[in-house]
Amino acid sequence: MKVNDLVRQMELSGVMGAGSLAKAVDIFEAMIKDKDSKVFLGQAGAMVPGGMRQILIDMIDLRLIDVFVTTGATLTHDLVEALGFAHYIGSEHADDSKLHKQGFDRMYNSYMPNKAYEKLEDFIESIFNELSKAKTIREFLSILGRHSPKNSILNACYNNNVPIFCPAISDSGIGLMVWGQLVKNKNIDVNAFADLKEIIDIAWASKKNGVFYIGGGTPKNYIQQAMQFSKGASYGVQITTDRAEFGGSSGAPLKEGISWGKLDPKGRYVDVACDATIALPIIFASVKDRLK
Amino acid sequence: MKVNDLVRQMELSGVMGAGSLAKAVDIFEAMIKDKDSKVFLGQAGAMVPGGMRQILIDMIDLRLIDVFVTTGATLTHDLVEALGFAHYIGSEHADDSKLHKQGFDRMYNSYMPNKAYEKLEDFIESIFNELSKAKTIREFLSILGRHSPKNSILNACYNNNVPIFCPAISDSGIGLMVWGQLVKNKNIDVNAFADLKEIIDIAWASKKNGVFYIGGGTPKNYIQQAMQFSKGASYGVQITTDRAEFGGSSGAPLKEGISWGKLDPKGRYVDVACDATIALPIIFASVKDRLK
Amino acid sequence: MKVNDLVRQMELSGVMGAGSLAKAVDIFEAMIKDKDSKVFLGQAGAMVPGGMRQILIDMIDLRLIDVFVTTGATLTHDLVEALGFAHYIGSEHADDSKLHKQGFDRMYNSYMPNKAYEKLEDFIESIFNELSKAKTIREFLSILGRHSPKNSILNACYNNNVPIFCPAISDSGIGLMVWGQLVKNKNIDVNAFADLKEIIDIAWASKKNGVFYIGGGTPKNYIQQAMQFSKGASYGVQITTDRAEFGGSSGAPLKEGISWGKLDPKGRYVDVACDATIALPIIFASVKDRLK
Amino acid sequence: MKVNDLVRQMELSGVMGAGSLAKAVDIFEAMIKDKDSKVFLGQAGAMVPGGMRQILIDMIDLRLIDVFVTTGATLTHDLVEALGFAHYIGSEHADDSKLHKQGFDRMYNSYMPNKAYEKLEDFIESIFNELSKAKTIREFLSILGRHSPKNSILNACYNNNVPIFCPAISDSGIGLMVWGQLVKNKNIDVNAFADLKEIIDIAWASKKNGVFYIGGGTPKNYIQQAMQFSKGASYGVQITTDRAEFGGSSGAPLKEGISWGKLDPKGRYVDVACDATIALPIIFASVKDRLK
Repeated sequence: MKVNDLVRQMELSGVMGAGSLAKAVDIFEAMIKDKDSKVFLGQAGAMVPGGMRQILIDMIDLRLIDVFVTTGATLTHDLVEALGFAHYIGSEHADDSKLHKQGFDRMYNSYMPNKAYEKLEDFIESIFNELSKAKTIREFLSILGRHSPKNSILNACYNNNVPIFCPAISDSGIGLMVWGQLVKNKNIDVNAFADLKEIIDIAWASKKNGVFYIGGGTPKNYIQQAMQFSKGASYGVQITTDRAEFGGSSGAPLKEGISWGKLDPKGRYVDVACDATIALPIIFASVKDRLK
Repeated sequence: MKVNDLVRQMELSGVMGAGSLAKAVDIFEAMIKDKDSKVFLGQAGAMVPGGMRQILIDMIDLRLIDVFVTTGATLTHDLVEALGFAHYIGSEHADDSKLHKQGFDRMYNSYMPNKAYEKLEDFIESIFNELSKAKTIREFLSILGRHSPKNSILNACYNNNVPIFCPAISDSGIGLMVWGQLVKNKNIDVNAFADLKEIIDIAWASKKNGVFYIGGGTPKNYIQQAMQFSKGASYGVQITTDRAEFGGSSGAPLKEGISWGKLDPKGRYVDVACDATIALPIIFASVKDRLK
Repeated sequence: MKVNDLVRQMELSGVMGAGSLAKAVDIFEAMIKDKDSKVFLGQAGAMVPGGMRQILIDMIDLRLIDVFVTTGATLTHDLVEALGFAHYIGSEHADDSKLHKQGFDRMYNSYMPNKAYEKLEDFIESIFNELSKAKTIREFLSILGRHSPKNSILNACYNNNVPIFCPAISDSGIGLMVWGQLVKNKNIDVNAFADLKEIIDIAWASKKNGVFYIGGGTPKNYIQQAMQFSKGASYGVQITTDRAEFGGSSGAPLKEGISWGKLDPKGRYVDVACDATIALPIIFASVKDRLK
Repeated sequence: MKVNDLVRQMELSGVMGAGSLAKAVDIFEAMIKDKDSKVFLGQAGAMVPGGMRQILIDMIDLRLIDVFVTTGATLTHDLVEALGFAHYIGSEHADDSKLHKQGFDRMYNSYMPNKAYEKLEDFIESIFNELSKAKTIREFLSILGRHSPKNSILNACYNNNVPIFCPAISDSGIGLMVWGQLVKNKNIDVNAFADLKEIIDIAWASKKNGVFYIGGGTPKNYIQQAMQFSKGASYGVQITTDRAEFGGSSGAPLKEGISWGKLDPKGRYVDVACDATIALPIIFASVKDRLK
């Protein structure tokens, strides 16, 4: 049985998680096929340590998305893998003191070798002259992508002219590497606010917009606030395990966005309450099949 | 892309939800293929209203399981569909007062027509003489399965000699229908404790046991306590969205069972934190493919 | 600052978890004070291992509730403590194989000494002649409560004429002890369906009803189905960490019950998404203060 | 009964949510009383719309914390209330299209009047000359705090010399107001990376550190990465409802931080899985009582 056939059967049942997942495939397919619509991907959480890096790269290379908003952690994990390191399959029951001595950083049951940071430092230092020409975070990430090894999210975005926005870039391993240069008295002057003009312009200039959120956090919220400067997103897919009851942006159902003008009341949207390492591969495999 | 190929890729990443799901397929496959092992399926929650009825029937017809422990609600929903009623795709934002007037019972975004209960009552009444011969809940459900329409979980279990245990049968629509007979002064004397002998005997007599839990509740716990009379389950798969922190049986990771003697310390087991209407179809499609 | 003053401040904020908790106190207070209303307490989950036993006893002794529906596990844990055993503060990171050898059964970070079962067996055996006179689960639990040590939930219910319903009693340590007698060829014939008459009669005969759910599972559902034979509960409080999206009864918001006729559309009700070992002590301390 | 007495009883039970909450009070008390230790508060999520603003102000005014890391949303909500607007008690079942027309922005059941943004714009414009002197986000927020109305988080931090870090400040209403100035061709050049020096210096220079996380997201992660430049936090309290299984930073138990060197293996730490609008008032009321 093909993944897309399974999703078609889930569509027939139409309810609960299976129904939401099937609807997510439909809506993601629709926002991609709608030539009037830009697709904004907001992604937070441990997707690269969770093995989703290649899918993200494929989504960019296939031009399924137009704008990518993410966390510094994702870009750091991407670079770490691009520089030749792996995330290892470990156990969530590990002795963390031992892991620390052995030089492994744990994310649930995924382990990153800590020595990756040394190579990351060398890499950032080697291109810092170039990086320091950036005036905005988007430019910084574009330069970083240009110099990044092939088969990385950063390089794929650069090659496909997909702008990367990462408002909290300083909150990451990459941020720490820049800090390492600052304490060596090198300079970089990247403006914390400047990117707002660009992302809002993209949202405002596009006839329609589609949003696809993997996790919440800053990436989702940053896209959501740009949507306020459009007529509201026409398409929305959200994969999150956070709950609505606590009131935070990460767990807010897309429907809440209607009150803010972030979502078009006539838009098509769905919330999928599922681990994204399960939901994303299914959505991607199905959509890829449908786009053939 | 085939579902099983997707699962094989998830296995390579090996971590978080994707890794757990892939591991669940492996372990379920192993417990089925191990001829020394019985497979106990414990199932709670709205799987039939969630569109999973046919998969459960197929699992029984393919003899993937040896013992079925479930809730009265699942058997009621099964019978309701077997009697010709459907669960409809609705909305979780419905006006529940209106639904009540319109005669629909809501389970999130799945609606059951309330009039199904009338036909259920007629059906139970029509076979009550037979049902009242039962001395145990298992016998009661066997008789019910014998008389149930084809293509039902109840009938599939009957035809395949898969015993159904349902300790809380009175807590269900079926229970209410029996109550309806009791208030008409009909009698039935089903012993609340008697089934323990049979399920414990099965667990005890089998060289090895495998447990597969969809949701927690009484079905999981009832199997778990039977496992204490074996050397502990050799295989375990659990799909649940409940959390460990609150201490209840439904959210308890399988690993806890080792302390109780419910799980063999050398057993293979995995917890999948995922909506079962997403996880189960993937697991079933993959295992079916592997068993060919 | 007094607990009730804190709750009053939460009431002023009125939103999210704090608002729900404050509302729960108001509604529980109202259902207690309304002389036309019975109070049905449904309780599932590890409340006794979680240290909540004394609060449950106090609620019964203060006659805050009229009907108690629970799991066999809760009654077993109650009896284990009544017989002199404690639940110990442990760690959720324990080596479960070691715990098994040491004779401790783990529930997250609460440990029960396994040898408690021996004393439980002796106790059940010593009163089995009496227990075997029971024809219904409710009678069985009444006899058990009469013989249970003072300062137990079971004994408190017996002394205060609070009927205990426990449809899945066989799914518990107490059930296993009865099984132990059955395999010694002793007899007991407790009818699995008979209690439905009594609980439905109570719901039907009362002018109004209030429901208070701590966790979901069988206890909640068993009360909910009885409510269908009233005009629907006039008051409802639910403490649960389960989610609505998966469609099961345990996570269903009380509002869903309106469609089924389980909740009066004009009723006052609230869902509290919180660990019950936190929420219950606050609710109880506040209500006790208000009832003075 | 006093809140602190309730917490002392929870400490006796010592397990599950109640035990974690009691432990959180102990550890927060300890990190405050330890004169060698700085206290870093990381806060994400809808705490101001959730009614927690006064508690946060009180915590700052009582100097319970030394460093505050938060989201742009929290500072925006704070400023909105400081400028005279309220968050209203609403319903999560509202018609969001109607709310949009009526000018209310919904966060679960808390409503913010959209017109607050106009006053926010005027306010930011009126002090933009001052704000534009800032070279770092921390300076920007210090200037903003100096000009903010009394009884605001921003002003309390300014008055108490508590630095505010907010790496994703552009991702907020405040960010949008700065954008509004940029499109009017005003300039501001706040460096996105510069604050790393200051927060890492604070962590590095302090003999010991304590971390208190309300929610996850950027605030938690930003403090966590600074901890890597100390010997690891000696004290840790985390209130979050996110789960570990998905691998993200927000749901990561504090224990994971040991592998990274973010938490001292000998440190005292606890995770509280609870809505922060419930847990925080209890923790604050208890600690305040103990500090008298």
